[in-house]
Amino acid sequence: MSITAGDIKELREQTGVGMMDCKKALTEADGDIKKALEVLRKKGLAMAAKRSSRTASEGLITSYIHMNKLGVLLEVNCETDFVAKTDDFQEFVKDVAMHIAAANPAYVRREEIPAEVVEKEKEIFASQITNKPAQAVEKILEGKIEKFYSESCLLDQVFVKDEEQKKTINDLLIEKVAKLGENIVINRFARFQLGQK
Amino acid sequence: MSITAGDIKELREQTGVGMMDCKKALTEADGDIKKALEVLRKKGLAMAAKRSSRTASEGLITSYIHMNKLGVLLEVNCETDFVAKTDDFQEFVKDVAMHIAAANPAYVRREEIPAEVVEKEKEIFASQITNKPAQAVEKILEGKIEKFYSESCLLDQVFVKDEEQKKTINDLLIEKVAKLGENIVINRFARFQLGQK
Repeated sequence: MSITAGDIKELREQTGVGMMDCKKALTEADGDIKKALEVLRKKGLAMAAKRSSRTASEGLITSYIHMNKLGVLLEVNCETDFVAKTDDFQEFVKDVAMHIAAANPAYVRREEIPAEVVEKEKEIFASQITNKPAQAVEKILEGKIEKFYSESCLLDQVFVKDEEQKKTINDLLIEKVAKLGENIVINRFARFQLGQK
Repeated sequence: MSITAGDIKELREQTGVGMMDCKKALTEADGDIKKALEVLRKKGLAMAAKRSSRTASEGLITSYIHMNKLGVLLEVNCETDFVAKTDDFQEFVKDVAMHIAAANPAYVRREEIPAEVVEKEKEIFASQITNKPAQAVEKILEGKIEKFYSESCLLDQVFVKDEEQKKTINDLLIEKVAKLGENIVINRFARFQLGQK
C-alpha cells in the first residue's frame, strides 16, 4: 500500500473533504481512490443522518409516474443548490427514479434492513441447503445473502439502463460524486404500485 | 329512527352495495344517509385491506412536486378503471395530493395512528391541564385529542381549497363517492420535504 500526496490531493479535489480525512480514507481503502471515495461517502451518510453538517442538505425531490399505475417519489441530496441544478445531477436523479420503478428495491442500503429480516432470510436459505459439508454451507449462505442484498437494496442493484448489466447504482453514484465533487446521498424513496400495499 | 325503502334504494344506487348491507349501514347510522355512506366506506376500507374484494383495486397513483423541494406520492383507489379515468376522480386525486403537500398530515386516518402515539399525546395534554375539576379535564382532553386528529389525519383535515374552511377531506371524499357511485379509498401517501426525514 502506498498513499501519495497526489492521491490525497485528487481525493480532496473530488470530494472537498479535508486532507486528514482524505488520508484516513485512503489508508482505510489500501490506497484505492474509488474505495476511499466510498469510505468518505459512507461517512457523509453518517453525518447526514445526524443532520449535524451541511453535507447533503440540498438536492432534489422528484417523482416518476408510469401510466398512472406505478409511482416513485425520491429524495437525492447533495451539498449545494448549485450542484442540484446541474444537468448531471438532475439526470442522475431521474435515472434513479426510473430505475426504482423498474427494479422495485425494498431498501436504499443494507444498513436499513432490519436485523430480523436478514436473520429470517438466512434461516430460509439455510433450510434450503442439504447434504453439504459445514464449510460449504457457510460459503453458499454468504453467496445467497449477497444475492439477497443485490436484489433488495437499491445501491447494490445493477442499474437497469447499464448496457453491460454490470454497473450498480452505487457505482453510478460514485461516478457522479467524482464528477460533481460533492457528496451525494440517495436519502429515501417511496414506490407505490396500484392495489399493492 | 325510520329507514324507508327509498333511502335503502338511494344508498344502494350511490354505492353499488347490496340491499341488506345498505339496510344494516342505515340502521347503524340511525337512518342518516351521509353517515351510512361512511359506514359502508369503512367496510370498504376493511375489505381493501384484506384484498379480498374488487372494492378499491383500481384507481390512480399520482404525484405532486413543488419547486423540486417538496413532493407527494399518492394512491387513491376506486372500483373500476372507468371511474379512475373520469375528470371528477382525477380532479379529486389532484386536489388531495396538493392538499397533502400544503397541510402535511402524518396519517391517512385515525385507525393508522399507533396506540402509543395517542397515549403519548394524551399524557402531554393531561400534563398541560392544571387546577380543573376531573369532569372538565376529561372534556378538555377529548377536545384536545379531536384537535390532534384534525391536525394529523388527512381525512380529518379541513380541505385547504375550501373557501369556507369547513369541508374536511372526508367530506370531499363522501361527495365524490355519492357523485361517482363507487367506493373511493385514499389508500396511502408519502410526503418528502428536502432535508427533512
